[in-house]
Amino acid sequence: MKAIALLGAPKTQWPLNLKQIVTLFKKNGDLVIGVDRGSLLIEEMGLIPDFAVGDFDSLKKTELAKIECDTADIRYSVPEKDLTDTELAVRYAFQDYHVETLTLVGSTGGRLDHFLTTLFMMLKPEFKPFVEKVEILDQQNSIKFYNSGKHNVKRLPNYTYFGIVPLTAVQNLKIVNAKYNLINFTSDYPVSLSSNEFLPKKSEFSLSFAKGIVAVIQSKDIIRYQNI
Amino acid sequence: MKAIALLGAPKTQWPLNLKQIVTLFKKNGDLVIGVDRGSLLIEEMGLIPDFAVGDFDSLKKTELAKIECDTADIRYSVPEKDLTDTELAVRYAFQDYHVETLTLVGSTGGRLDHFLTTLFMMLKPEFKPFVEKVEILDQQNSIKFYNSGKHNVKRLPNYTYFGIVPLTAVQNLKIVNAKYNLINFTSDYPVSLSSNEFLPKKSEFSLSFAKGIVAVIQSKDIIRYQNI
Repeated sequence: MKAIALLGAPKTQWPLNLKQIVTLFKKNGDLVIGVDRGSLLIEEMGLIPDFAVGDFDSLKKTELAKIECDTADIRYSVPEKDLTDTELAVRYAFQDYHVETLTLVGSTGGRLDHFLTTLFMMLKPEFKPFVEKVEILDQQNSIKFYNSGKHNVKRLPNYTYFGIVPLTAVQNLKIVNAKYNLINFTSDYPVSLSSNEFLPKKSEFSLSFAKGIVAVIQSKDIIRYQNI
Repeated sequence: MKAIALLGAPKTQWPLNLKQIVTLFKKNGDLVIGVDRGSLLIEEMGLIPDFAVGDFDSLKKTELAKIECDTADIRYSVPEKDLTDTELAVRYAFQDYHVETLTLVGSTGGRLDHFLTTLFMMLKPEFKPFVEKVEILDQQNSIKFYNSGKHNVKRLPNYTYFGIVPLTAVQNLKIVNAKYNLINFTSDYPVSLSSNEFLPKKSEFSLSFAKGIVAVIQSKDIIRYQNI
């Protein structure tokens, strides 16, 4: 079983076809998770979360009552707690529902401390077993995470660029079969090696490194400049 | 002299009054910098960058020609270079123009590898002297950076929340005079301690830590949910 969790950031950065994506998860019997206000946003799509977690402080009583009525599994978090609502969603999804993968949507485009909490949670020792099973997805980015070792990173359909983002100190990082290859890259602090590209005839590139956790961000351009 | 630099991310996350902000910089004789496509975006506001840097690859010839004609100081970067256009803008602003502070706009809301390149550049030893002089600003977030030591962090007008984000390993981090205080926090990896708040009657809180670089992200809510 796969899982998708919707967080509460503004819709501006949502994947354009998010309703279809969530509908497909429901149709396939996969797990749909509402994280706090994200539970309401799922209901506003006309869908029901299978599982909801949060303190639900920002919801009206009637909104929360409807979620409580609809959702089979609802768990209440405590503010000032050690784990955020998103971290609880990750823990429960993998430990209680034994999902194979978890896609997080609604993490970007809002408060940046919230986004970074979600990005950096993958560094917590508790989440190490899930590092390579979590994806952060928005309108033009897919972020996946890798433990040290050798990986073939597959190009996602319609994505053009990628960035290699060591989130920790990293040793002997190597990129092969990409537009810009790299050998023996070492850094004592996080860095984002951005604007790399897949080779035209390749559907993957090779990434290896000896220590640390690295995010790979695949991205695409979206032209949506507004007049100001 | 202060400086503001406009980067090329989509306008969706721009501060709502960006044109007024840039106009005020011009009016006060402060430095307005266009970073690559950002130079064009400044011209589209009806303003002229004082200084432009980039490879300008994404611009049409006529667009680049106009910038070359208007802008007193234009510098061409080389792709596959060690420093990004934004990093060159930071270096030139402080070293050649001796600016006191630099505000970066147009860094968020687009490709996340680009945003993280800008966020993490503050960890490079070359930029250590400028750490506390740089701000990343968007519609609902202000990110400032601190070297180890003791700091009084002042509340920005209309901002409600803040997150404390060690971007490196950090030791003995202490937060005092905030809604959620903290003592002796130590982490071996980056983490975002989000959703803290200023105390109602306080215009600042105290932050101290013994090692590393910490970002403080002040943020505010913006209600802009769209129908999907």
